[in-house]
Amino acid sequence: MQLREVAAILKAEVDGDPALEVTRLVHPADGTGAADLAVALAGDAAAALAGTRAAAVVVQPDATAPAGVALIRYRGHERMALAILTRAFERKPDVAPGVHPSAVVAATAKIAAGVAVGPFVAVGERSAVGAGTVLMAGATVGANVTIGRDCVIHSGARIGDGVRIGDRVTIYANAVVGGDGFSVIPLTNPDGSKNPLELPVRIRSLGGVQIGDDVEIGASTTIDRGTLRDTVIGRGTKIDNQVQIAHNVIIGEAAIICGTVGIAGSSVIGDRVILAAGAGVADHVSIGADAIVSARAAVITDIAAGTLVDGVPALPRVQALERYANVGRLKMLYPRVDDLKKRMEALENRGKGG
Amino acid sequence: MQLREVAAILKAEVDGDPALEVTRLVHPADGTGAADLAVALAGDAAAALAGTRAAAVVVQPDATAPAGVALIRYRGHERMALAILTRAFERKPDVAPGVHPSAVVAATAKIAAGVAVGPFVAVGERSAVGAGTVLMAGATVGANVTIGRDCVIHSGARIGDGVRIGDRVTIYANAVVGGDGFSVIPLTNPDGSKNPLELPVRIRSLGGVQIGDDVEIGASTTIDRGTLRDTVIGRGTKIDNQVQIAHNVIIGEAAIICGTVGIAGSSVIGDRVILAAGAGVADHVSIGADAIVSARAAVITDIAAGTLVDGVPALPRVQALERYANVGRLKMLYPRVDDLKKRMEALENRGKGG
Amino acid sequence: MQLREVAAILKAEVDGDPALEVTRLVHPADGTGAADLAVALAGDAAAALAGTRAAAVVVQPDATAPAGVALIRYRGHERMALAILTRAFERKPDVAPGVHPSAVVAATAKIAAGVAVGPFVAVGERSAVGAGTVLMAGATVGANVTIGRDCVIHSGARIGDGVRIGDRVTIYANAVVGGDGFSVIPLTNPDGSKNPLELPVRIRSLGGVQIGDDVEIGASTTIDRGTLRDTVIGRGTKIDNQVQIAHNVIIGEAAIICGTVGIAGSSVIGDRVILAAGAGVADHVSIGADAIVSARAAVITDIAAGTLVDGVPALPRVQALERYANVGRLKMLYPRVDDLKKRMEALENRGKGG
Repeated sequence: MQLREVAAILKAEVDGDPALEVTRLVHPADGTGAADLAVALAGDAAAALAGTRAAAVVVQPDATAPAGVALIRYRGHERMALAILTRAFERKPDVAPGVHPSAVVAATAKIAAGVAVGPFVAVGERSAVGAGTVLMAGATVGANVTIGRDCVIHSGARIGDGVRIGDRVTIYANAVVGGDGFSVIPLTNPDGSKNPLELPVRIRSLGGVQIGDDVEIGASTTIDRGTLRDTVIGRGTKIDNQVQIAHNVIIGEAAIICGTVGIAGSSVIGDRVILAAGAGVADHVSIGADAIVSARAAVITDIAAGTLVDGVPALPRVQALERYANVGRLKMLYPRVDDLKKRMEALENRGKGG
Repeated sequence: MQLREVAAILKAEVDGDPALEVTRLVHPADGTGAADLAVALAGDAAAALAGTRAAAVVVQPDATAPAGVALIRYRGHERMALAILTRAFERKPDVAPGVHPSAVVAATAKIAAGVAVGPFVAVGERSAVGAGTVLMAGATVGANVTIGRDCVIHSGARIGDGVRIGDRVTIYANAVVGGDGFSVIPLTNPDGSKNPLELPVRIRSLGGVQIGDDVEIGASTTIDRGTLRDTVIGRGTKIDNQVQIAHNVIIGEAAIICGTVGIAGSSVIGDRVILAAGAGVADHVSIGADAIVSARAAVITDIAAGTLVDGVPALPRVQALERYANVGRLKMLYPRVDDLKKRMEALENRGKGG
Repeated sequence: MQLREVAAILKAEVDGDPALEVTRLVHPADGTGAADLAVALAGDAAAALAGTRAAAVVVQPDATAPAGVALIRYRGHERMALAILTRAFERKPDVAPGVHPSAVVAATAKIAAGVAVGPFVAVGERSAVGAGTVLMAGATVGANVTIGRDCVIHSGARIGDGVRIGDRVTIYANAVVGGDGFSVIPLTNPDGSKNPLELPVRIRSLGGVQIGDDVEIGASTTIDRGTLRDTVIGRGTKIDNQVQIAHNVIIGEAAIICGTVGIAGSSVIGDRVILAAGAGVADHVSIGADAIVSARAAVITDIAAGTLVDGVPALPRVQALERYANVGRLKMLYPRVDDLKKRMEALENRGKGG
């Protein structure tokens, strides 16, 4: 890519040779060649810039260029520049267009022109895959599935029967979309009463899963079908690795679900909600739009829109911090109470003595 | 299915045309066709019933029918009716009986008549698969494995060498049964002493895994082999997604293990125990029959039969709630102690002044 | 294996027939045949030894032999003996050397002599696999991957593009090495300000993953690529099942990462660190060498070398235990303060009365 093209996608200015070719995006301290482009926009950028061996660097508008280094002057945050540039430089999946001879595609499945179906991919009856989509080696697609355009389904991802996937969706390796929900009737109820069953009985999931446009689903994440209706992941929502999303859950648009989060059955997560790493959400609760659940917090009651919560169980963060601080102060409180007790006894004895 | 058949499996009465055909199970508010059957047995069922567009509805014995809606009068809980009906209406896995031409089955493996082996399935030497079992696309079965009758092994499930699986077992997508246990000798012991090793050393698992009849194992769940004996999952136990069960663990019958639970090595879980979502069990502990471990609780000592525990570490629930409440009351306690201190000083000064 | 050979690998003495053949390693209570070898070195070993039906037993140097049982006298710990012996008795993966006819290996990939490539394995362009390595059924290897000698890549493991793996590495079933890091720019920042985006935007990972020699990676564990540099797992580090390791993380040598641990982006874990089951590490923190993080603890600040930490958030263990104990003592503190208050009122009233 020429620097003029890099500048164009960043909406930035070139200060140097616009025809310079860059082929690799590097950390400012790592550049080793004439074709390396670095990004140095954050707080310590000036130091990074001084030592770089990259041929070109993306810098803040007022930065000074070391000798022999071309600059792209960009007004914005480092993370935003990285989002734009990593997408431009990323390597596309290495799957040839067409259906690999080893793949098994059902006769009634519809594979659009330009789809790339890798080795050992299975596609079930009556499923449809949109143009530009890539199914990587060993992915499996069940029956009656719809996958939109320009999706990437990575190796070992399992798309269950009846799942509907929008456009530009990425499902990473070994994710499972469309498993059976875990809704089990136990032999003993929490109140100690017994169900007249020989073994626990499971309610099967007859619903599907709907995945909106531009959603991403991380490696080894699992999303179960709904019982009678669909489990829903809204447009643009990004889900990290090892997340568990149970049956009937509805997640809004543009939410961010970090790694190892668990969401229990029938809960509703609003638009733009952020669930930080390891957070948990109990069943049948509702989290309002724009709420943020801190790492490892456990939501067991409804959370109002825009609230920042923390703790187990999750409370508004100021309350959670207060609880935490109050426990910390206990080590001073115990001696204070001991001291009061001694002084009380002294006063009481003085009273008696009088 | 005709209404008379639905009534028969529910042991219920038809109030309407017993020959009416229903083909789909729907939420009461969603019915759109002449072949839809809804279930409206719970608290808000009357309202749901009033607005339904389903052709037939399962209702409590004393419910009133809207015009033109056939009823099935059922004495029981909604969840039990759903368990029975979702099983009746569920779609069976879409794998043709026989061995798919792409599957690789070892010459010494025994595949019973009527087994369905999907594309890209591998079955190792001396393994046996019972009649009626389905191995879905991309599942792998190691050597010396026994799988019983009428099981379903979903796509990408990995059954390791020597695993023994009973009848009517379901193993969901990408689950791993029979991995190597994680029993590692570190370079440094917890007391700070050093082991004379260059690198950590792992004790390998030579035992197997036994899975009882009617067990279900969720998507991306992992169950390790035992070291010298077998890891055991008792009959009828249901395990959700993303659960980790370590080497030598013994789980009794009819237990319920919810999503993202972790059970460390050599622990023993009694019959009918419920481990709620995200619960953890340390190594070498024992949980008695019928105990319930609350969501995200961490069991680090033995738990007596029938106990309900909560918290980190897990305590009998009443104690855990007391601890929680006592922390909440601290924000009132601190001012009370401050107040006592001031009054104490006042009394002390009064004493001096006198 | 003859007893003389067993003694040789243990550096121990035979007390009995050194030519006795043993074929199976058993728990002391389980021996049932002339070819069973048991290990009875721990505290209760004498009792176990008395009842054994194994033909030979590994015992402490001063143990007494029951009649008819051969002994191997070993000076050391039971776990060390098991580490040595389970490795000697373990069954090797059942994959024939050579490339299975169903495997798809890119024309530009280099597969060394003696590599065993199982059914349904895919290997991408320009990847290299070293001598003695086994790729089990259904594993996939991306493009530009390097795998060293004598590795075992289990079924369904996904090795992403550009990953570099050392020698003698084991990657267990359905693990994913080389996924895309989860670095997402949200629409709303934690301070409530808005980003000018229509949907969240993801920074792609252009870096790779480096896996050192003798590393083991558990079933369903996920390790993401770095953003511009590599994610690194140091030599000899052992990782259990269901672990999530995010982009840019650097783990030192000989560390032990137990099941269901999560490590967020860009954190640095020192040599020989132990992260116990369910521990969490926030992003951009550093844990010094030889530190131990207790089960389910959550590290959110840097941890000094050699520290033992516990709790959420993680504190030096003595502080974490103190906090825990202080909460437990509250149930006694509240009545004490109530008592002081009554006595205070009595004194105050006495003062007034006087």
